[in-house]
Parts: sequence; structure tokens; C-alpha cells
Amino acid sequence: MRLELHSNTATVGAATHIALAESGLEFAFVNIDMANKQQQSSEYLKINPKARVPSLIVDGNILTETPAILFYLAQLAPESSIALPESALAQANIQSFNSYLCSTVHVAHAHKMRGSRWSDDSVVHQKLSKYVPTSMGLCMTLIENEMMQGPWVHGEKFSISDPYLFAISLWLEGDGVTISDYPLIAAHHKLMLERPAVKQVLAIG
Amino acid sequence: MRLELHSNTATVGAATHIALAESGLEFAFVNIDMANKQQQSSEYLKINPKARVPSLIVDGNILTETPAILFYLAQLAPESSIALPESALAQANIQSFNSYLCSTVHVAHAHKMRGSRWSDDSVVHQKLSKYVPTSMGLCMTLIENEMMQGPWVHGEKFSISDPYLFAISLWLEGDGVTISDYPLIAAHHKLMLERPAVKQVLAIG
Repeated sequence: MRLELHSNTATVGAATHIALAESGLEFAFVNIDMANKQQQSSEYLKINPKARVPSLIVDGNILTETPAILFYLAQLAPESSIALPESALAQANIQSFNSYLCSTVHVAHAHKMRGSRWSDDSVVHQKLSKYVPTSMGLCMTLIENEMMQGPWVHGEKFSISDPYLFAISLWLEGDGVTISDYPLIAAHHKLMLERPAVKQVLAIG
Repeated sequence: MRLELHSNTATVGAATHIALAESGLEFAFVNIDMANKQQQSSEYLKINPKARVPSLIVDGNILTETPAILFYLAQLAPESSIALPESALAQANIQSFNSYLCSTVHVAHAHKMRGSRWSDDSVVHQKLSKYVPTSMGLCMTLIENEMMQGPWVHGEKFSISDPYLFAISLWLEGDGVTISDYPLIAAHHKLMLERPAVKQVLAIG
């Protein structure tokens, strides 16, 4: 099986990249130069017409969307740190957390730089951007108080939710959110930084 | 196993509700009165601190987020119309589509009425609302041209992506999008309306 990750480590693509490094699976990495809008090139749009990263190419089949890719990698690597729990309900709890990250937390963050998805008015973009510390802060409060089990997202066992939360926690400072206000998330961030897979991916950045 | 759905059929909760009706599983339905903001009541916040629907209670365990609930129901009902395909990659394609719906399409729609998630300025809310026909139209174009296999989302076999797309297609008229501009999505909507499970859920509405 050939796995090829098209991504950029400064984006949510870091979550998939770290999960791949954790999985022990062999993969090739193709950097997408977001600063030069390579994600909007005609070549990349053939891979992902949504003009976003990451995309994982699996023997020629293209897979997009972080929660889908992470779950698939966990299925592919049942002996690794990202292996799924056996129970369907425990798997569903992982998916639920990841869905919250993609539908609400990543979206709150995107209002800082990607306001053009929801308005063509530059004044609106500025106002959306200004609200990001508030909306991201609310998300972190909910994760800290209602979701985080600690030390990992779902408790004693590492899972695909961990690189996903970590990738998002890398944005907090830029989003005007102080990570130390959220002790469980801050401790998680620190633990993640010690993992060889994380060091390996951040070194590419 | 006791399944209890807390939801409202005028929301994305319709997707889960239809999937449950398709599954053949027994379940209880508790209507959450969104018009009277019951989702923000202290009682409901104990179930779902995100103050959103749907929530599925599985023997006392609370599961939220549509993609997670749908996948779980598909695992519970392997003999039903919502059964998962066997291959992990085919499952991942279903999850990818569902992730796109939750992270991008539902979010585009939410800018019509839920602007307070991303700004505290009522002028911004109005401007976000006005752009919804454009952003939802772009989403439908992408689904129509790049994702829909027809007649069902993933081709000849019905899946959990079908009630999810259908629930969202119910919003299009209100969002200023003309469904007939998207022939595959329009045909899908019509096919869905003929299904007993869909008739049963819409009759509750």
C-alpha cells in the first residue's frame, strides 16, 4: 500500500502528519506551499477540489477531511499508539470529539483568516477576526471542563484525538488565547511535545 | 440496549432520526423545543453542554455530533439499509463526505441564524446572513460536481451519508438556494422523500 500525504505542517494537516508518524506506516510527504497558494493550483485542485489540506492518497484513491483520515489510519495501524479501542461506543466518543474539533473549533479559528468563506465584505472580515479570542476561548473552556479526561483526551490511552487537539493547540497563541488558562490542555500540549512523532513533524515545519 | 434520541426534526437532528428509523433499532424520541430555547435549559445542558441537538443516549452514555452518531448507528445495524461497507477505505469515504457536511456545509448554513457564534455585532450578523445563498450555493456546486455519485451519495448503495445530505437539503430553499440547479441533489431529495423512514420522521416535524 502506498500512502502519500499532501499537506503543510502549519495547518491542521499536522494532526494527520503526526498520526502517520505515530502509526509506523510508511508514507511519502508532499509539502503544499500555502504561502504561495499552491492549494489553489490547478494541479492540487485535481487532488482536492476543496483547495484545502491535508489530502491522503491511498494507492491512487484520494481521501480528505481530517476526522475521516485519522480514523482510517487508526484502522490501518491496529498495533500502534493510534489503535482504536474495541468498543463501538468508545470509537464513537473519539469520533464525537474529532467532529467537535472540525465542526466548531477549527471553524472558530478559521474566522481569523478565512472570513472570505462567509462574507465578501472586508470590514466584516476584520470584525470576525477580532472575535476569535472569544470564540476560541469558549471552545477551550468547553474542552477543558467537559471533554478532556487527561492526561490524554480520552483518558489513559493515547488516540487519534490527541494529535488533532495538539495541532489546534498550536494555534492558540496566535488566536489570542492563553493556553495556561486551561491546565489540562496545557499539560496535554507539553506531553505531546515530548513525543518523537511530534518532534519529527515539527522539525519539518 | 436503550437508545434515546433528544432532537428536533427541523434541525440537522433529522439526519440521525431518519438513520434510526432506517436502522430498525428501537429507540425513544424526546423532542427538544428549539423555539423556546429548550436546548439552553439547565436540564438539557447536563445532557449536552454544547446546547445543540441531536444527542443520543445509549444506556446512559451520551453521544453527540452527527457524524459520530451516524457511524455508530451503522455499526449497530449491520443488516439494515444504513450498514457500512466492509472496506475501511469505503468507510473512510463515507466519513469524508459526512465531515465535509459538518465542517463546511452545515457551518455555511449556520451563518444565516447563528452569527452570534462568530461575532457580537448585529450588523455583522446581517451581513453574514446575506452571504448564505452564495456560500451554500458553492457547497452544493462542489457536492453536485465532485462528490455525488448518484442515485445515492456514494453510488448504488444507500448509506448514512444519504439522510445527512437530505437533512441539509431541506434547508436549501430557506437559504436562498434553488435545489433544481443541482440535478443530482434534487433527484436525491426526491428519492429520499419516497422512503418510509423519511415520511415517518417528517410526519413528526
